[in-house]
Amino acid sequence: MLPQQIRNFIDVFAKLPGIGPRQATRLAFFLIGSGKSKINEAARGIIDLASIKVCTNCFFIHSNEGSLCGICENPHRVQNIIMIVEKETDLMSIERTRRFNGRYLIIGELTKGGILDATQKLRMSHLKNIIGKKLDGQADEVIIATNPTTYGDLNAMVIKNELEGYAKKFTRLGRGIPTGGEIEFADEDTLEQALERRI
Amino acid sequence: MLPQQIRNFIDVFAKLPGIGPRQATRLAFFLIGSGKSKINEAARGIIDLASIKVCTNCFFIHSNEGSLCGICENPHRVQNIIMIVEKETDLMSIERTRRFNGRYLIIGELTKGGILDATQKLRMSHLKNIIGKKLDGQADEVIIATNPTTYGDLNAMVIKNELEGYAKKFTRLGRGIPTGGEIEFADEDTLEQALERRI
Repeated sequence: MLPQQIRNFIDVFAKLPGIGPRQATRLAFFLIGSGKSKINEAARGIIDLASIKVCTNCFFIHSNEGSLCGICENPHRVQNIIMIVEKETDLMSIERTRRFNGRYLIIGELTKGGILDATQKLRMSHLKNIIGKKLDGQADEVIIATNPTTYGDLNAMVIKNELEGYAKKFTRLGRGIPTGGEIEFADEDTLEQALERRI
Repeated sequence: MLPQQIRNFIDVFAKLPGIGPRQATRLAFFLIGSGKSKINEAARGIIDLASIKVCTNCFFIHSNEGSLCGICENPHRVQNIIMIVEKETDLMSIERTRRFNGRYLIIGELTKGGILDATQKLRMSHLKNIIGKKLDGQADEVIIATNPTTYGDLNAMVIKNELEGYAKKFTRLGRGIPTGGEIEFADEDTLEQALERRI
């Protein structure tokens, strides 16, 4: 019943993260209803993403002339403290705190099974290479910033094992009651961690 | 911190229904990560929507040669029973039942305040025109298929008042317990309706 163009659109957009067939259908109708100039604007927004580069060092995105992102290019950032994050948005959240002056490796979204995929393995060997060549074989610290969940814990362990010997110490982000949170509603594990790591 | 291209993308896509800034950011990273050919495919999917037409009769979308959609073009569909729906997706849901052989008017998503906007008023006068010219001033039935919610009820009343005299009868979709639903979990109003309209 729907024109081919809309079915194509739905096929493509329903596969994007967080957008299913229903949402894609809704988007198609919305875009059609907003007219040609809005449609062109949206298409242009996507096309322009093609010019974005990925940093050859940490795999964060950038649009610099060279091959490195702003963080890796910055000579004031400490080289031998490396934070491993899953996603670009995790990196951005950390950067917003302005409290971390080391560098990153974006490993990509990890599975729940604690198994690294081909890309993730490549990125790990890439990191080992960097540590081997530029940091004399050992980083001062590798912060494994996976989520504080059962899967995140498992994945952190897998990554730590992979990097055994490549860092003087391995750390993870601190756990406790989030600022603004209420003790009454904190789960047992969080409270336990908050007690153990009290400040 | 983000390249201009990504910020543009987020600006445009965060405004689409169901997509906020967070989801738009995630989409940008996903698209960048999936490579140029996927980016082009997505852009093409959007561009092609520009060729979709809107039916001059019922305002459903189509890609026919003429100005009418498949439903309005179909000589086997009854002309004097008209269902008013808010959205294209509502029309599609009704069509999937294959139990309605009349025609439609897509009025557009209604506000909660029971006030028709300029486009919606235009569509209502358009419907009155059609009823006046092609149906001798009165449709056999106008089904006002707004959602069975407080707002939907209010909007149905507003539409009915607008069309006073233009139809022999005004109806709405039946109410009761949905198939597969459980009596235990049905709310009071639904049960009341189910009792009153028992089959």
